[in-house]
Amino acid sequence: MSNFRTIWTTDDHYVEVIDQSKLPHEFVVVKLETYDEAEVAIKDMVVRGAPLIGATAAFGIYLAVREMIEDELDPSFLDKAFSDLRASRPTAVNLFWALDRMQTALDNTDDFMTTAWETAKQIVEDDVETCRMIGVYGLPIIEEISKRKNGEVVNILTHCNAGMLGCVEWGTVTSPIYQAIEKGIKVHVWVDETRPRNQGSNLTCYELTKHKVDHTLIVDNTGGHLMQHGMVDMVIVGTDRTTRNGDVANKIGTYLKALAAKDNNIPFYVALPSTTLDMSIRDGLKEIPIEERNQDEVRYMIGKSANGKIESVLICPETTKAANYGFDVTPARLITKIITDRGVCDANEKSICELYPEFV
Amino acid sequence: MSNFRTIWTTDDHYVEVIDQSKLPHEFVVVKLETYDEAEVAIKDMVVRGAPLIGATAAFGIYLAVREMIEDELDPSFLDKAFSDLRASRPTAVNLFWALDRMQTALDNTDDFMTTAWETAKQIVEDDVETCRMIGVYGLPIIEEISKRKNGEVVNILTHCNAGMLGCVEWGTVTSPIYQAIEKGIKVHVWVDETRPRNQGSNLTCYELTKHKVDHTLIVDNTGGHLMQHGMVDMVIVGTDRTTRNGDVANKIGTYLKALAAKDNNIPFYVALPSTTLDMSIRDGLKEIPIEERNQDEVRYMIGKSANGKIESVLICPETTKAANYGFDVTPARLITKIITDRGVCDANEKSICELYPEFV
Repeated sequence: MSNFRTIWTTDDHYVEVIDQSKLPHEFVVVKLETYDEAEVAIKDMVVRGAPLIGATAAFGIYLAVREMIEDELDPSFLDKAFSDLRASRPTAVNLFWALDRMQTALDNTDDFMTTAWETAKQIVEDDVETCRMIGVYGLPIIEEISKRKNGEVVNILTHCNAGMLGCVEWGTVTSPIYQAIEKGIKVHVWVDETRPRNQGSNLTCYELTKHKVDHTLIVDNTGGHLMQHGMVDMVIVGTDRTTRNGDVANKIGTYLKALAAKDNNIPFYVALPSTTLDMSIRDGLKEIPIEERNQDEVRYMIGKSANGKIESVLICPETTKAANYGFDVTPARLITKIITDRGVCDANEKSICELYPEFV
Repeated sequence: MSNFRTIWTTDDHYVEVIDQSKLPHEFVVVKLETYDEAEVAIKDMVVRGAPLIGATAAFGIYLAVREMIEDELDPSFLDKAFSDLRASRPTAVNLFWALDRMQTALDNTDDFMTTAWETAKQIVEDDVETCRMIGVYGLPIIEEISKRKNGEVVNILTHCNAGMLGCVEWGTVTSPIYQAIEKGIKVHVWVDETRPRNQGSNLTCYELTKHKVDHTLIVDNTGGHLMQHGMVDMVIVGTDRTTRNGDVANKIGTYLKALAAKDNNIPFYVALPSTTLDMSIRDGLKEIPIEERNQDEVRYMIGKSANGKIESVLICPETTKAANYGFDVTPARLITKIITDRGVCDANEKSICELYPEFV
């Protein structure tokens, strides 16, 4: 793995990640040497994005195995690592999927260290391939719009960051975009700022800049207006958890964009790695737990001040309280198609199960 | 007039306003002594909110008249003042309404100075009464919800600031809220932050704090989620321009909240002073000009830093460009009722003309 990814291993068999809480202003690499550090990296959003959370948790288990063996700790240490990592974030299902995969691998081996290391590395490799394939299947959708517009710029709106920074490479939402650009298709991306954590302005703008993709930052309020005026050809977002029925939990505010897309007959796509499928539930609104985070993420805004330092500024009266829900659920009825690593399908149980018969 | 208003006259016959760009962190009063200063105050959003823009422009004309007379300037100076003030902001129609009223008054007098002064003062007084009456007619809507909930808290969501700070006293949206609270009804307000200028977190939170109204700040992305989960009983917003058909231009993002309200069967109200009616147009989407403002309002965020200073921080890569549309249009079909200073009515031509027969 090279450091052009979001997570990579070191020669001394540890893991390094980009501290995404510092982007786009500073590029800082953080080395994770204990499961505790992996847990904190997930909780504090040093790493974020459903697939990358899963990959980091998997390496967290490897680090716990290593600590257990090197420090001759009781096996309960590993159990605690599993439960701590499991509790690190509640909404993205990849986290639980990755931990389950690590558990199964460890249940079937005597060589804990090698198995944990290899399984975590495989989870990372699988994510790269999954994202690449989402791009392969998503590309024709962009191509089609480009053709219909006689080669004019295709305007794509996205919310939050389901880019390479949220995954390992390619990204989910960005994979079709990067592949379209490699093919010479003209693309322009409207990037939702994505309050309160600004993953759009901080991360999506950062990676689109790095990949030389034409983009414009907008506040989260703007998408509806753009859609009303024919300035958006398609919307594509990621997902942190997808139900059997095709309901999608994604970054708070996604639902509002889905409503606007529907109201203006603009196709609304969800880029979906199978690792975000939670076939155990049907009704996203009732069954997906929505994370509530610290109110200061709303009350304060972080950015680079005139003196070049990263600073946090208060944007409301001292005494005002805030609510901070991390995700919302977009009902399947608002989704045009989901783009998976096995093809494009409708957002309903029948179509999902046709692509993923192992989940029937 | 007392300084508990947003605009007031001084003993030496000038005008003072609160510098709303400094709130909630600093309370700074700005004295306006020339029409030029009034124009800049409107352009730079020292004053904002459709009714207050109108009132400030009216006093701007008085100041121009005074300059013309005191400095013995050519009458073309006053013409220039009219056209400069008319061009200061494009969307809110109150601005044009107030300038037209000043023009008519000046066309019918020989005593320019007294007429300009008295007419501007009357525009201010009329706004106070208009807002008070919107509260009188809006109050029963809140009362009704309170009764249905057996006196439990009524949860009201609002976007931007259509409060007393956007008007002179009472506010439009806040008038029914303040009057409900005076009557002992339990009310809680969800305050949309309202990016990019944060009129929600800066101004609505400020005035609700001052009036001891229970409120919670949320990012603009959150309203849909709250509505999906039964945490909003009604939405009420202001308007900068209302068409003959009942389409409403209001702060960017209003349309998204109207869609979510519709999708969740939550009543969506617009508090409408008749001064925002533009009976010359029908189709809000096609005919209302939407202001585009400086992109740095999106790229930078202003707040109070740890050292107590008001600072501006960059929230995206240096090279990222941004688009900054100030308003969007909510089609009449998404509006449950409009609450005017003459009563509550449907958002359509027939109902509006019944309340305002002078506009038929």
